[in-house]
Formats: sequence, C-alpha cells, structure tokens
Amino acid sequence: MENKIRIGIVGYGNLGKGVEESIQVNDDLELVAVFSRREPSSVNTLGANVKVESVTNVEQYKDKIDVMILCGGSATDLPEQGPELATIFNTIDSFDTHAKIPDYFAKMDEVTKKSGTVSIISVGWDPGMFSMNRLLGEAILPVGDTYTFWGKGLSQGHSDAVRRVEGVKFAVQYTIPIDEAVNRVRNGEHPDLATNEKHLRECYVVPEDGANTEKIEETIKTMPHYFADYHTTVHFITEDEFHANHTKMPHGGFVIRSGKTGEAHTQIMEFSLKLDSNPEYTASVLVAYARAAYKLNQSGDRGAKTVLDVPIGLLSAKSPATLRKELL
Amino acid sequence: MENKIRIGIVGYGNLGKGVEESIQVNDDLELVAVFSRREPSSVNTLGANVKVESVTNVEQYKDKIDVMILCGGSATDLPEQGPELATIFNTIDSFDTHAKIPDYFAKMDEVTKKSGTVSIISVGWDPGMFSMNRLLGEAILPVGDTYTFWGKGLSQGHSDAVRRVEGVKFAVQYTIPIDEAVNRVRNGEHPDLATNEKHLRECYVVPEDGANTEKIEETIKTMPHYFADYHTTVHFITEDEFHANHTKMPHGGFVIRSGKTGEAHTQIMEFSLKLDSNPEYTASVLVAYARAAYKLNQSGDRGAKTVLDVPIGLLSAKSPATLRKELL
Repeated sequence: MENKIRIGIVGYGNLGKGVEESIQVNDDLELVAVFSRREPSSVNTLGANVKVESVTNVEQYKDKIDVMILCGGSATDLPEQGPELATIFNTIDSFDTHAKIPDYFAKMDEVTKKSGTVSIISVGWDPGMFSMNRLLGEAILPVGDTYTFWGKGLSQGHSDAVRRVEGVKFAVQYTIPIDEAVNRVRNGEHPDLATNEKHLRECYVVPEDGANTEKIEETIKTMPHYFADYHTTVHFITEDEFHANHTKMPHGGFVIRSGKTGEAHTQIMEFSLKLDSNPEYTASVLVAYARAAYKLNQSGDRGAKTVLDVPIGLLSAKSPATLRKELL
Repeated sequence: MENKIRIGIVGYGNLGKGVEESIQVNDDLELVAVFSRREPSSVNTLGANVKVESVTNVEQYKDKIDVMILCGGSATDLPEQGPELATIFNTIDSFDTHAKIPDYFAKMDEVTKKSGTVSIISVGWDPGMFSMNRLLGEAILPVGDTYTFWGKGLSQGHSDAVRRVEGVKFAVQYTIPIDEAVNRVRNGEHPDLATNEKHLRECYVVPEDGANTEKIEETIKTMPHYFADYHTTVHFITEDEFHANHTKMPHGGFVIRSGKTGEAHTQIMEFSLKLDSNPEYTASVLVAYARAAYKLNQSGDRGAKTVLDVPIGLLSAKSPATLRKELL
C-alpha cells in the first residue's frame, strides 16, 4: 500500500504496547512514533525500530501523524492530554469514567470543532462494543430489558484494593458472572438483578511470611463498597502459583437484550467477549477506530464522536463495495 | 410527541404484520397506511384503524409518508418495487439474495441519488446484524477466523422442499447448529468447517393417509443440495402435533470471531440471536432503520446505504447527548 495511515501512540503502558502490536497486523497503518513522559532512551518498545519521543516534542509531528492514539488513564492523563492533543491531531482514546463522559465529550467537541480535527472518545469494549450493543438492543426491541454482565475477568480496581490489605504480598481479584443469573436472562426471564446478584468476586492472595490469613480474609470480605455486598471467596496461594497462573489480564462479559415482540414472542440478542488479554483487545478496537477517524476527517468531518456516531464500515481497510460483496 | 415519523408498509405478509406491530411500540413513529396488491377491503390488518390502500395509489402519498418499509420478497418483489418506490420515498428493505446485493445496491444508489431520497437496503439480521458483527470481527481482530452458524431455526426454503415430496401433507425443517462445532470455535480452535459440518437438518413431517413413510424419508434424505450432504433426521408426526408445536417461526444463530492478538492471546467475540419469531424480529430491525433513514435524509443525505454505512446512534429515538449519558 502506498499511503499508509500514520499513527502515533501517546503513553506506553499495557495499552500502548497493545496498540503497537495491533498496528503490526494492519497493513494499511504505520506507527510513526511512541510518545512518553519518560526519558525516551529508557522506554523499551516491543518492536526494534520504533521511534520513541518525549511527549513534549509532540507538536513537531503535526504534519507527520494522521491519528494519535491516546493510551493514558482516564483519571488524570486523558482529561489533560485529550483536549491538548486534539488541537493538533485526530485522536482516539478509551476514556472510561462513565459519569464524566458527557463533560469530556463537550470539551473535546469544542476543541476539535475549532481545530478541524476528529476525536473519537471512549473507544474500547465498555464503553465501546458493549455500548453499541446496549443501543442496538433497546432500539430494535423497545419492549425489553438490557443486562450487562462482566467477567470472568481481572478487575484492576478490586485487585488494587486487596493489595492494600495488611499482610498481602501479591493479589488479584476476578469478577465472575453468576451462571444462574445469566441463564435466567438467556432463557427469557426478566429478573431484577442488582450488580451483586449478577457477579461473584474471587480473590487469589499471596500472604507475606507469617501474616494472619484469617484476618486478611476477614478484612477483604468486609471491605465496604468493594466486597462487603458480594459473595466473595479468598484463596491463599504460593508466590510460584501466582506468577504461573495469575499474571495475565483476561476479561470479557455479555450484553443481553431480552425483549418481546407481537403478542408474546421472546427475542434474545446477546453480544459476548471472552478475552485472554483485556488491554490487547482494547488496543485492537482503538486501532480500528483510528482508521475511521482518519477517513472521517479526510471526508471533511470534524468534532468529537463516540462509537455510536461512526458507521462501522469505516473501521475496515476494505472498500464499501468489497464489504457489501463479502460481508452482507 | 408532536411530529411523528410517518411510515408506510408495502406488502402485508408476516413481515408487514411484524412492522405494524413494531410501529405500535415506538412512540415517535406512526403508521400512515398499508399498501397491498390485493383488493384493500380483503386485507385484514392487526390494528382496527389501519388504512389499507392499493399499491397502485402509492404516489398520492408522496408528501404524507416519510419512510416506506418494503416487506416484499427478494426474488421478484423488491427488484421491481425498490427502484420504483425509491424515486418517491425514503425506503427500507430486507433484500437478502446475497449474491445480487451489489447489483441491487448499484440500482438503488442510482435512483436515490437522483430523487434525493435515502434507501437502506438488506436490513434485518442476515444480512444485517450478522453482517455488522462479521465486519467488527475482522476489523478489530484481523488475525482470526469468522464463523456463522444458523439456527436452531425454521428454514423456509428447506420446508418448501420437503412439502414438495409426494405423500407429504405438512412439513417443517429446522436447521440446527452442531454443538460440537460451536464449542470448538468458542474454545478458540480454528477448525475448517463446511456448512454441513456446522449444521444438522431436522424435519417434522405429517404424511398423507396411507403414504409410504419409508419412501418419504428416503426421498428427503437423498435430495441433492438440500439434504443429501447433511446429517438429516425425519420425524413423522400427527397433524395435531404439527399444529400445536410446529407453526411458529423461530430462528437465530451466532457469528463468532476467533482471533489472536500479541504473541498468542485468544480473543473471542460472539453475537447471537435466539428468536421466537423470525419475521417479527426482522420487522423490528427494519423499523429501527426507518428512523435512521429519516434522520439521514433530514440532514441532507441521499443515496443507497446498508447497515455498514449507518451510525447506529441514529437507530434510537433518543438524542445523542442522552445516549452518551445512558449507554456509554
């Protein structure tokens, strides 16, 4: 391909690495540079020939990068970097603080309308693919209920909470959908289910030498907000077992719309993900939307968008005619 | 709501009836009239106050209907009605002869570009929702395989074939995904599977009095194209059992994308439908896209589209800001 879409990555943690890997399997895209707050020489990229730049030099790439993929966190990185970088580049991000999305969208929309760029925010799987499926469910089956289940998957926030308990050396927490609840929904029942009736919490803990495991378990299980309202199990394991079996970042879940049409016909739509690597999948979604942002901007569009605003045909490198022929 | 989107239905079989029912549960839409080739007084609509018109009078509704939903068949109705009606109205149809979609699209695009209308073609679940999920799968996970399974569901074409066998009074044929094949795909294997390795065919037959059931079974099982290449079972049942249990039109299926990211992480995306009524679900999809066609045309768009070209936010009656707040 002659003219590849030129991509930059801002922030090089698990998500940024996933984006680098995803670009490698998309022939129409090329990675121009990784931008980091760290000293560039200290950043070890997966690929051997990847250029690493200090994020302070980002403006020099104004005409060299078509879409910047922002891989920072939603708490502090994106609210600052998003509006700044969107004045220079088309951007993609995975802003996922659900309650703050309207404000973030407004800010990004203001900036991009001025700069003539396109920013697709809150891309990934939730928000992202799951949001799309929640919308399809309620738009197609207005009479019905939508259920989102998460897991089985590693929850970063809950794992952090367990690690802060005294006497804990290493820990992970998995969120697990309760089979019985999933099956009731899949069978067309319409149960009222609180989050703790849909999910279990399972913790794998490596205690410090000589730590009081009974006290650790008690502290975890009674922790307000995080665990007290849930059915929680705590497994104590060795450090070897932890490193062998609990360092991946699996995740997934389901969005189920259970609706009725006509007199009494049950209609079930379900979208599910089973991911060995949550950050690599999220990165893959970001990369596909980078292609869409570029195409939208090339066609004269500007402003902030979400996955709900983007025709999904734009995610593909194939032409509309090829897509109609192959996929419809 | 003050200004409802005004809908017309052309063709009043199972699909047209489903559209009528779906409009009733969408407050922002109203049904203006049903158009039929039959004598209007002979058409019994589900609703008591529905206007029925001869399809020959359709032009008189040019300024009274915003979107016409075409509920005819793909073999002969739509190739003729589509281009004709698209010169007057925005249209939605479920054209599903996969091989002829490119030609039909070209024709509809030509007509609508001239008339200034929007036509969204091939709407439904396959083509439709399944096409969207095939696209999402390959765009997000370029390294991987896509599998489509259909069923458990009633296949109209295969049921017709069974009914043509001598000695058959009533019959239905269900296409059933083979569990073992589905599970291999869901578990991240990448098997090469022909259609007959993914699906079973199950027939329920009411024989005529005194018919030779052995011969019927033999004729069905050896029927070329339809059954000979498949594992087929034939059940003979009574007429009572047939009317009690086999007059619904259930269907469904799965689109599974099994991909790899990074070094060796398996990532599975799955979309599935479990439908008590195939025509009512398809109708519900058509109605949601009617709303989108209206909005696109209002914003100045024209031309033929497919589900791959339409931002899914347009399917909802809610504002973009509300959708961002509630669904992202």
